[in-house]
Amino acid sequence: MPDQVLDDISHRRYNPLTGSWLLVSPHRTKRPWQGQQEAPSKNVLPEYDPKCYLCPGNTRAQGDSNPKYQNTFTFVNDYSAVKEEQQEYNPSTSKDDIASLLLQTQPVTGRCYVLTFSPKHHITLADMTSQEILPVIQTWTRLYASHLSSSHPLNQQAQQTLARIPANPDGEVEPPKNQLRYMQIFENKGAAMGCSNPHPHCQIWTTSTLPEEPGKELVQMARYRAEHGRHLLADYAKLEAEKGERVVWQNDGFLVVCPWWAIWPFEVVIIAKRHVRALVDLTDEERLQFAEAVQEVARRYDNLFETSFPYSSGIHQAPLDCTEEEAETSWFHMHFYPPLLRSATVRKFLVGYELMAEPQRDITPEQAAARLRNCGRELYRKSLN
Amino acid sequence: MPDQVLDDISHRRYNPLTGSWLLVSPHRTKRPWQGQQEAPSKNVLPEYDPKCYLCPGNTRAQGDSNPKYQNTFTFVNDYSAVKEEQQEYNPSTSKDDIASLLLQTQPVTGRCYVLTFSPKHHITLADMTSQEILPVIQTWTRLYASHLSSSHPLNQQAQQTLARIPANPDGEVEPPKNQLRYMQIFENKGAAMGCSNPHPHCQIWTTSTLPEEPGKELVQMARYRAEHGRHLLADYAKLEAEKGERVVWQNDGFLVVCPWWAIWPFEVVIIAKRHVRALVDLTDEERLQFAEAVQEVARRYDNLFETSFPYSSGIHQAPLDCTEEEAETSWFHMHFYPPLLRSATVRKFLVGYELMAEPQRDITPEQAAARLRNCGRELYRKSLN
Ligand SMILES: O=P(O)(O)O[C@H]1O[C@H](CO)[C@@H](O)[C@H](O)[C@H]1O
Ligand SMILES: O=P(O)(O)O[C@H]1O[C@H](CO)[C@@H](O)[C@H](O)[C@H]1O
Repeated sequence: MPDQVLDDISHRRYNPLTGSWLLVSPHRTKRPWQGQQEAPSKNVLPEYDPKCYLCPGNTRAQGDSNPKYQNTFTFVNDYSAVKEEQQEYNPSTSKDDIASLLLQTQPVTGRCYVLTFSPKHHITLADMTSQEILPVIQTWTRLYASHLSSSHPLNQQAQQTLARIPANPDGEVEPPKNQLRYMQIFENKGAAMGCSNPHPHCQIWTTSTLPEEPGKELVQMARYRAEHGRHLLADYAKLEAEKGERVVWQNDGFLVVCPWWAIWPFEVVIIAKRHVRALVDLTDEERLQFAEAVQEVARRYDNLFETSFPYSSGIHQAPLDCTEEEAETSWFHMHFYPPLLRSATVRKFLVGYELMAEPQRDITPEQAAARLRNCGRELYRKSLN
Repeated sequence: MPDQVLDDISHRRYNPLTGSWLLVSPHRTKRPWQGQQEAPSKNVLPEYDPKCYLCPGNTRAQGDSNPKYQNTFTFVNDYSAVKEEQQEYNPSTSKDDIASLLLQTQPVTGRCYVLTFSPKHHITLADMTSQEILPVIQTWTRLYASHLSSSHPLNQQAQQTLARIPANPDGEVEPPKNQLRYMQIFENKGAAMGCSNPHPHCQIWTTSTLPEEPGKELVQMARYRAEHGRHLLADYAKLEAEKGERVVWQNDGFLVVCPWWAIWPFEVVIIAKRHVRALVDLTDEERLQFAEAVQEVARRYDNLFETSFPYSSGIHQAPLDCTEEEAETSWFHMHFYPPLLRSATVRKFLVGYELMAEPQRDITPEQAAARLRNCGRELYRKSLN
């Protein structure tokens, strides 16, 4: 039974994955909104757009041509945030010098990819069936496997998995020469989330450093394991499945919940039910179960306000180069951070108080989960697929 | 001399105030932008808007009327995120129970204020002179002073300061009965930063808990003091004033810099040069110097892209209820987080990679500072004041 009083009072909730708190103000949704309205996406896109730099056969900004691909297509971002080769830089690090204390820096190298989900310009994950999403997950898995360090604890697992997933007939990328530390797979969907091209795609930024967020999660998960001898997300998934009030959907492999500590109004996380450390740990069956979970989230999101729902999503898993201990601590999950709050045009702004003091949300995660549970019908619009 | 190589290579920078890293990719501004365009604000607002709930003499959403105020006006937010009275709640906290580990919560009480900067509906801080901004700072100071706990280390200071600042003739608010822990003063300016009313105003959320961001900063500053026997922001302000490359503007009391660890494209921080723990520590002269610094930031921002520049800003200072140690550790400063990147219509989105992995910026803080240094001329538009 959900704790009814939390529907009425302002309270903080703790996020054990990041070790930080957020403020929940459930009564605040009564506030009238006179601010910015988002433009709801109008679905008048063509199946093929000759000006799109992601459509098959087209030429990109820097002159390269896309193949006439059938499923997914992966290429190195023409405007990567990190590059494989750059000038050497060794910041001076004297312990007593104030500048080396307060102006700390580290060079970062890496490689950024763009990965299209489909040759069709006008669809989204919500329009695709789980069978059609499967090749996306296979591509992520092959890419992750091919970037693992040679001494990685998951290497044997990766080789076996690679042998079971057919290579993309449209071609695959060669991993970079230098071993990288982390692979962040993420999607920005919709103009509200800074996406500049509606062609369904995600990005994959692979860096020589472990980024802040997965780094924080690993520390918190390791601490929990050390203290309790169990996995944080194992305990959490089990607890949520028992309680039920924040569960949106589940199958044998994955649980979809609005987490206790959700910041974004309809935030969800897909959590592996068993100890999956990274994509390469998934069995053939689990890859399909994961595709189903992603499909359920995307479709329910679109159904909620009958609009193409904007979000940023991202996968957290074991680093590409890591110790046995780090691999063991990792627990595969995927976050979805969607900004819409009340309708297709009114979003939540995470601004002044949220940036300066503490994240604040207006509806409880239990209320959000109840609404998403009720959105499981067929896609509200005619699927474009 | 700035380190030229950092203009070319991808690197991380460390934020000693929060203890976290961000990614800087200076070459990435060459990327074409086909995504969302912000609507540049059109300055066609009337000096008085009969429908505005902040204009003098008007009636607000829940029926209260504003006085015909002359300077600033402070009232309790009609849709507060926290309230003074609410149902009691004592979460169960058994150490062994998985639910009390993973579903942690705390009740939060408090009071939220709205504070208008001027009776004029159509102006902004950039249109006001530092003499006109001074009453805003006086109001902040009186409000902070009146909310301090009776045992607060700054109490005597507060009484002296209160005696020197004239009370607002349009009336002042009574502090709440229960002592609160922290007062967060912040402004959301512009539709891009979730502001729903252009009438110049800020908000003040006062809570029974210490929020995450000032809490993190206090821990980091305390650690630095313990290790080095000096104040982090004292060392930092001195270092930046010597180096010069990130300094935007300064007077005797305050330094305005694009911090080494800036996340937002034109982020700045105003730092007190001497050890000011909170607003009540400011002398009469320093209050005016602070008003000048705020004016310089607001005007330079508007001049940069010749538009009413959106931002969120916020003041960090000593908690309302705190130990001697916490008060001593506090160092008064004000952050400005503006989203615009390239023009009045193209902003930086902090989305997928930033949310899932690590904040990422495209221009260096040194480049941003150089541009803001060159924006010191008179306000580009006819000031509406
Ligand atoms: O209180 P306002 O101005 O209506 O609301 C704005 O600021 C608040 C505090 O940063 C945010 O929680 C809201 O999302 C934003 O729209
Ligand atoms: O690479 P894109 O899609 O052009 O850019 C988008 O995603 C990036 C990664 O989250 C952000 O840094 C950009 O601000 C955003 O516009």
